[in-house]
Amino acid sequence: MSFLIEPVDRLIREFSKLPGIGPKSAQRLTYYLLKEPDEEASALAEAIQNLKKDIRLCSICFNITDRDPCSICQSKERDHSTICVVEKPSDIAPLERTGKYKGLYHVLHGTINPAQGTTTENLKIKELLSRCQNGSVKEVIIATNPNMEGETTSLYLQRILTPLDITITHLARGLPFGSELEYADDMTLNQAIEGRQKFKQ
Amino acid sequence: MSFLIEPVDRLIREFSKLPGIGPKSAQRLTYYLLKEPDEEASALAEAIQNLKKDIRLCSICFNITDRDPCSICQSKERDHSTICVVEKPSDIAPLERTGKYKGLYHVLHGTINPAQGTTTENLKIKELLSRCQNGSVKEVIIATNPNMEGETTSLYLQRILTPLDITITHLARGLPFGSELEYADDMTLNQAIEGRQKFKQ
Repeated sequence: MSFLIEPVDRLIREFSKLPGIGPKSAQRLTYYLLKEPDEEASALAEAIQNLKKDIRLCSICFNITDRDPCSICQSKERDHSTICVVEKPSDIAPLERTGKYKGLYHVLHGTINPAQGTTTENLKIKELLSRCQNGSVKEVIIATNPNMEGETTSLYLQRILTPLDITITHLARGLPFGSELEYADDMTLNQAIEGRQKFKQ
Repeated sequence: MSFLIEPVDRLIREFSKLPGIGPKSAQRLTYYLLKEPDEEASALAEAIQNLKKDIRLCSICFNITDRDPCSICQSKERDHSTICVVEKPSDIAPLERTGKYKGLYHVLHGTINPAQGTTTENLKIKELLSRCQNGSVKEVIIATNPNMEGETTSLYLQRILTPLDITITHLARGLPFGSELEYADDMTLNQAIEGRQKFKQ
């Protein structure tokens, strides 16, 4: 926009490239930083610059880490006999927030999606298999997303893991907390009926 | 969050400080940058760092600028007899996007809001008055926001500008484009009825 000065216009354009940030949000963020003390903008810029310094993937679980193996794989307090398989590193945060899961993780880095050129070869599936073959793993929780690609990947993992003597589970499907039956979609209701559970006594 | 490595956690915290960005968006943005090539993250960081370099306020209209007077105040193609008064620099972008307005601007840098300690003294009101007193200004469009503080400020400006021989106008009030009468609030409908316009022949 020609009436904007270059540094303002440039930051609006850079912010707009981020996912979920449209031109209006980008403008709001830019003008916000203009108003704030220099230190706040610098802290943000530095955090971005430092993001990828010394960052690598854990050679065991392939989560993003600054030391190898990552703190979860190294931890003696975690249950090393359970592996939760997720699609991407950011799927770990919501699971950890629950405080409910004490096992390890395995990050696939994608889902099987031949249309987009992602096959089993591009994912960390071989590595999962070899982790499961060392005898110490008792349960694998497949926590791929409940959508087409996630389900395809889950089916494939079930097939290759079944020959091993391991319990294979998936996260429960059903009505999300706070939802209303009236507005639930057919698929969710189907799964909620199929997976109905007894009241705890 | 202890399971996150420091640089990731730090950027999530920095993003969370921005307006309209909650912890989940901050996490999504951070993992997005982790996945993207280094150049994209660097471009964003640099744009933030450079934002305030050589930036100042235009000594005439008080818009943010990199040269003084700003490009709008300097432009020979703009109508120098009309001034549109806005609350903040970011209010200029939507007006410029319409391509409809060819006059100059004046940025107040706030609204009269005694509860938050903003009085007429803290705003660029003196400066507006002196621009209007030089004889070349024929119309002042008061484009403060249609809310309590904006209206208070508008009333004050009307009062101090009335003694001068200047046309004082405000942006039209009424039903926004795309809205539905059924859901319009009383105030908007009131103003839409009061300001009803004849069809153009």
